[in-house]
Amino acid sequence: MSENNTTRRSLLRGALAGSAAMMAGRAAAAPDPLITDLQDWASFPGDPVDATPYGLPIRFEADVIRRNVPWLTADPISSINFTPIHALDGTITPQGCAFERHHSGAIELAKENYRLMINGLVDRPLVFTYEDLERFPRENRVYFCECAANSGMEWAGAQLNGAQFTHGMIHNMEYTGIPLRRLLAEAGADVSADKWVYVEGADASSNGRSIPMEKALDDVLVAFKANGEALRKEHGYPVRLVVPGWEGNLWVKWLRRIEVTDAPVESREETSKYTDVLADGTARKWTWVMDAKSIITSPSPQQPITHGAGPLVITGLAWSGHGQITRVDVSKDGGMTWETARLGRQGDAKALTRFYLDTEWNGEPWLLQARAMDDTGYVQPTKDQLRAVRGENSVYHNNAIQTWALSTDGRAENVEVS
Amino acid sequence: MSENNTTRRSLLRGALAGSAAMMAGRAAAAPDPLITDLQDWASFPGDPVDATPYGLPIRFEADVIRRNVPWLTADPISSINFTPIHALDGTITPQGCAFERHHSGAIELAKENYRLMINGLVDRPLVFTYEDLERFPRENRVYFCECAANSGMEWAGAQLNGAQFTHGMIHNMEYTGIPLRRLLAEAGADVSADKWVYVEGADASSNGRSIPMEKALDDVLVAFKANGEALRKEHGYPVRLVVPGWEGNLWVKWLRRIEVTDAPVESREETSKYTDVLADGTARKWTWVMDAKSIITSPSPQQPITHGAGPLVITGLAWSGHGQITRVDVSKDGGMTWETARLGRQGDAKALTRFYLDTEWNGEPWLLQARAMDDTGYVQPTKDQLRAVRGENSVYHNNAIQTWALSTDGRAENVEVS
Repeated sequence: MSENNTTRRSLLRGALAGSAAMMAGRAAAAPDPLITDLQDWASFPGDPVDATPYGLPIRFEADVIRRNVPWLTADPISSINFTPIHALDGTITPQGCAFERHHSGAIELAKENYRLMINGLVDRPLVFTYEDLERFPRENRVYFCECAANSGMEWAGAQLNGAQFTHGMIHNMEYTGIPLRRLLAEAGADVSADKWVYVEGADASSNGRSIPMEKALDDVLVAFKANGEALRKEHGYPVRLVVPGWEGNLWVKWLRRIEVTDAPVESREETSKYTDVLADGTARKWTWVMDAKSIITSPSPQQPITHGAGPLVITGLAWSGHGQITRVDVSKDGGMTWETARLGRQGDAKALTRFYLDTEWNGEPWLLQARAMDDTGYVQPTKDQLRAVRGENSVYHNNAIQTWALSTDGRAENVEVS
Repeated sequence: MSENNTTRRSLLRGALAGSAAMMAGRAAAAPDPLITDLQDWASFPGDPVDATPYGLPIRFEADVIRRNVPWLTADPISSINFTPIHALDGTITPQGCAFERHHSGAIELAKENYRLMINGLVDRPLVFTYEDLERFPRENRVYFCECAANSGMEWAGAQLNGAQFTHGMIHNMEYTGIPLRRLLAEAGADVSADKWVYVEGADASSNGRSIPMEKALDDVLVAFKANGEALRKEHGYPVRLVVPGWEGNLWVKWLRRIEVTDAPVESREETSKYTDVLADGTARKWTWVMDAKSIITSPSPQQPITHGAGPLVITGLAWSGHGQITRVDVSKDGGMTWETARLGRQGDAKALTRFYLDTEWNGEPWLLQARAMDDTGYVQPTKDQLRAVRGENSVYHNNAIQTWALSTDGRAENVEVS
């Protein structure tokens, strides 16, 4: 049907181009795009409603996709890709382009085969089926999920050229899930303040992580829907853990077991990985919370200004694992002076907040920066401030201010300012 | 890569099933599903991160799609399909399964070819390119869009069997767009209280509609993103009108022209269609607002209870074109007694609100109903109450309470109670 209509349109376009040329008293030459492309949609029917039972983006948006950087990791099975944040607006991330991070690939696990065990320091060790989980009270909450290594390459200075690659290991979805405290209660778990839960996935990596009981009882969700529909395979179908504000590695996918323990397990993923090596060689451990951070998504290296001087919308994202974003400032001169941006709408706690600065570009070079503030009073640091505290050995938890150098031709580049 | 892993898994499954059979001292027979399906994901790698640059739902969710009812309309070019609301949770509707209503099919319009004209009673008639629009200040807001004909078949009594078909002409997305008042100001429009705007699309239907100036200046958006990404082709790519709380027909897709007028145009779509014929034959006109309404999505005819008596989550959606949902009640006895449901989270004005009733099913037959209340104090009416006021000639604006008859076997059916 779609092809038929496209063919019909091509025929019409030819006919109209011919008429236009004749009216202008010229021989038929190149078709006039104004006539052939601007005005002919009313001359033919479009696609029927049954064309796409589950729809995908229009072909013109084919570059708004997750992208991998093959040289970053040794094997695509244990790798990452990046959300195209430079091309998105608003705050919700569609699942189809939300970044992936796998430690042993994305597994295919049917609901019928799904089991979740709760064991350890519990009165009643339990194994839940998917259908069991659907019978517990559930909530809806919007949260960001950021990989601890997001912007990690930038510790060594300006590296990857594009917001997608420097800051794209983040997504923001509306989750539906059961509060973990509800399932712990069902199993009669010991929820004393000094206890922990150890969570692991059904994939080959298992990706086991320890979470202190205080957090487990707070806002952690055992989630099965994102943005209204089932989790995608690559996001942990059918069930993942949602650990609001904390690093993405804790958001265990294909969740298979929750063990209540009297001490953290000190697993690989919380000792040799996901710790922060300081300048003196010691490692910060249990650095779970993602501190306040922001990024200008447009203009940016993948999103240059294509018009001349005059009205310009500068936009980006801000978030804090500690709570709500209260303010975002934008600088055009590398951090010497700041203007307060407008929030697209007041964001939820531990969720992405969109900001806009409606301004005028004077056609001159700018050094663009954004800095976020959250409701704890925290202000996003510069790279120099962060390095002074953490050294330069880190891979994780880089929440420093990012700089784009805007040229007179409207292009932007990843640079570092001191 | 995905096929390789699946093959590897099949081989492993065979091997494990063989071992299990041997351990049990039996000859190899049918594979033990517990061993082959519950425990082997840790034995092989999953898909790499570059498997799906733009992802789709996992194959197990292949039935969660928009569905058409071919006999409802004469031609799929001027037709409708339905959001699978029975299978969704939370409030956001993914674009891929958000209902479509076309009057002459979905057209394919590239950004480069897009133009929006503002003319009529304006100081400066203007034509905007897509890039022009990107230079205006924009907002993010979540709104529901409901076709005026949603639940329209139910005027004649219980008809289509499933929440998707009775109430699925609705979706709920986060829009990014420019307030229409801002573009009207740019053109120097006469925005006196007695003026109107006439809006039309670039498709063959043009679907022209008149909107009073008060609404045009209030919350109408000229939108280009939904749920963070570009509008889908079938939702009006690259630009559609968002008219919060008002019937979907006004949300003109492929928006091409906004004319400021001193009177409504009285177009086909607001005279012979989208008006409500009352019992005495007169037609209610300008019935734009979608009144408060709700629907239980589970259990429902497409979503039976598959477990026995005991804990049950009853869930559904509520919305009001007048403002915020303040309360939803659920009845198990056809409206004689009511229990107040819990809201998944406090919803935005003119957006879907999810409700839950965490309850116990006694295994007996129920007559399930939900009724919504909004912040104007309005209470969703019964079918009888609505018919007493509007007669039975209507097609549009049926916001009556819906009834599902739940059987002892857990199945639900669309019925009518008086």
